[in-house]
Amino acid sequence: FASLQTKGLHALPRLVIFTSEDAHYSVKKLASFMGIGSDNVYAIKTDNVGKIRVEHLESEILRAKSEGALPFMVSATAGTTVIGAFDPLEQIADLCAKYNLWMHVDAAWGGGALMSKKYRTLLKGIERSDSVTWNPHKLLAAPQQCSTLLTRHRNILAEAHSTNATYLFQKDKFYDTRYDTGDKHIQCGRRADVLKFWFMWRAKGMAGFEAHIDKVFENAEHFTNSIKARPGFEMVIEQPECTNVCFWYVPPGLRGVPRDSAEYRDRLHKVAPKVKERMMKDGSMMITYQPIHDKPNFFRLVLQNSSLDKSDMNYIIDEIERLGKDL
Amino acid sequence: FASLQTKGLHALPRLVIFTSEDAHYSVKKLASFMGIGSDNVYAIKTDNVGKIRVEHLESEILRAKSEGALPFMVSATAGTTVIGAFDPLEQIADLCAKYNLWMHVDAAWGGGALMSKKYRTLLKGIERSDSVTWNPHKLLAAPQQCSTLLTRHRNILAEAHSTNATYLFQKDKFYDTRYDTGDKHIQCGRRADVLKFWFMWRAKGMAGFEAHIDKVFENAEHFTNSIKARPGFEMVIEQPECTNVCFWYVPPGLRGVPRDSAEYRDRLHKVAPKVKERMMKDGSMMITYQPIHDKPNFFRLVLQNSSLDKSDMNYIIDEIERLGKDL
Repeated sequence: FASLQTKGLHALPRLVIFTSEDAHYSVKKLASFMGIGSDNVYAIKTDNVGKIRVEHLESEILRAKSEGALPFMVSATAGTTVIGAFDPLEQIADLCAKYNLWMHVDAAWGGGALMSKKYRTLLKGIERSDSVTWNPHKLLAAPQQCSTLLTRHRNILAEAHSTNATYLFQKDKFYDTRYDTGDKHIQCGRRADVLKFWFMWRAKGMAGFEAHIDKVFENAEHFTNSIKARPGFEMVIEQPECTNVCFWYVPPGLRGVPRDSAEYRDRLHKVAPKVKERMMKDGSMMITYQPIHDKPNFFRLVLQNSSLDKSDMNYIIDEIERLGKDL
Repeated sequence: FASLQTKGLHALPRLVIFTSEDAHYSVKKLASFMGIGSDNVYAIKTDNVGKIRVEHLESEILRAKSEGALPFMVSATAGTTVIGAFDPLEQIADLCAKYNLWMHVDAAWGGGALMSKKYRTLLKGIERSDSVTWNPHKLLAAPQQCSTLLTRHRNILAEAHSTNATYLFQKDKFYDTRYDTGDKHIQCGRRADVLKFWFMWRAKGMAGFEAHIDKVFENAEHFTNSIKARPGFEMVIEQPECTNVCFWYVPPGLRGVPRDSAEYRDRLHKVAPKVKERMMKDGSMMITYQPIHDKPNFFRLVLQNSSLDKSDMNYIIDEIERLGKDL
């Protein structure tokens, strides 16, 4: 890869990245931006709870090889954007070791669970990865923006990004210039976004973050149980792994329509946007919705605020029912 | 270029970017990051005041063509990092038109001069460019970070960056989704860095920014004249165009040494780092230094704070003399 920096991608065979079909769109976007091409991000099929199918991953790696391309990275996801699924990191690490691939874990969303002894097992295997994206501004509720890239390879950021511009990174200073980290970054002028997270960590401690994580997961569990118990509400994924709770609200007038009919699907698809419009106009709350694969629009409650409690969870359900029962 | 996003750089001939040898290191860095390769940034020679030599630019464009490569962009600089030189934008625009190249202007540093009727002529020709980098956090003193990319091509950011991720950019909202600009950006979660600049502009107005610019240029002029008048101080570029004032301090003990000797050069090269060390330890001020091309280390005063006045300029000179006269 040494000539990649100077000669560019033309010096290499076609590179291929593997990631879940449910991965964040940033993987394809960056592949496009970096000249690799979005077609060279091979989308791996997921199972019925949103996790990468490892046998499909292996067959796609073999397909890329048979095409003469160079498979070089798997981007696993720990907490997918919509469903909140955690890819099977141990099995992915095994495949990366077998085929000599860089193992990246996009734990931007789910990585915060590492702060909790109860939930950190969701990320078992992450310790075998080469690099990790971990955004404290998501599950840990640091102020936007605070995104980190962690890697076990001590010198690789300097090797990848240093330009040794003599007008900026003088080596003839009187102090130890190893602490001038600017040349390791992609950007030049930038805010020290991680400083606020350092302050949070000092103030809350591990125990504070653990209590925060346990609380948001507990709220998600309570919300899930309430959805299951309430007539007209249905889970999209029966047992969420993260604090994403995906569900439909089926208004009374739609409950008698056959579920496999086009009418049911079309009308259900319009419920969430309409309820969202009404909640925005009322100013009562904000909750996102989206379709996924062949599933019509559903609500996605994403919990990251540990100052909410069970009564807030109940309010959300009541409010959606109030806003949508005539649809 | 349509297939670039999906197929990657392999779908195209080798791309070549042209920029000044004194351009900011970010041009090469980004070429490396984007898979183009830093060798495919052709460095154009500068004249004795730091401006691109246009005849060398044209011969390098022709060289790239003769090599079978695809010249596609000139990145001109309006305010180089060290010297503060403004490339001849009109002539560069003529060449870009002649050879059908994208004209980018890196006005990150010098672009602030556009706010002043007196100094905006430095950027004559920028109105013919395809895109401009303009960082209000530099010459206009907005809080770090506030960097803008401006382009005359209305839909190009959406065409380049949109992924139309249905889980984030729903089109079935009840309001006009043309104002959802998120999908046009490279980043997903990000701060609205430009908001603080909008507030500054509303508060200061054009007149306020113009007064700011005129003041920092006036201070630079006063400082330059003082340097020229003071024994032992020498300008690197006789007449700075921007507010970068580059100069040497030659301590009394070095003034008798022949200027073309290795001893003179070696000793002068060590003066600025030593004076910088002393000013940092005293805590009196901060001023950067660096070498350029074959020139030994010199000081670079870069003015962007309009609350400084002539007495501050005089203090800087006195302080450097005080800290360095025994060297």
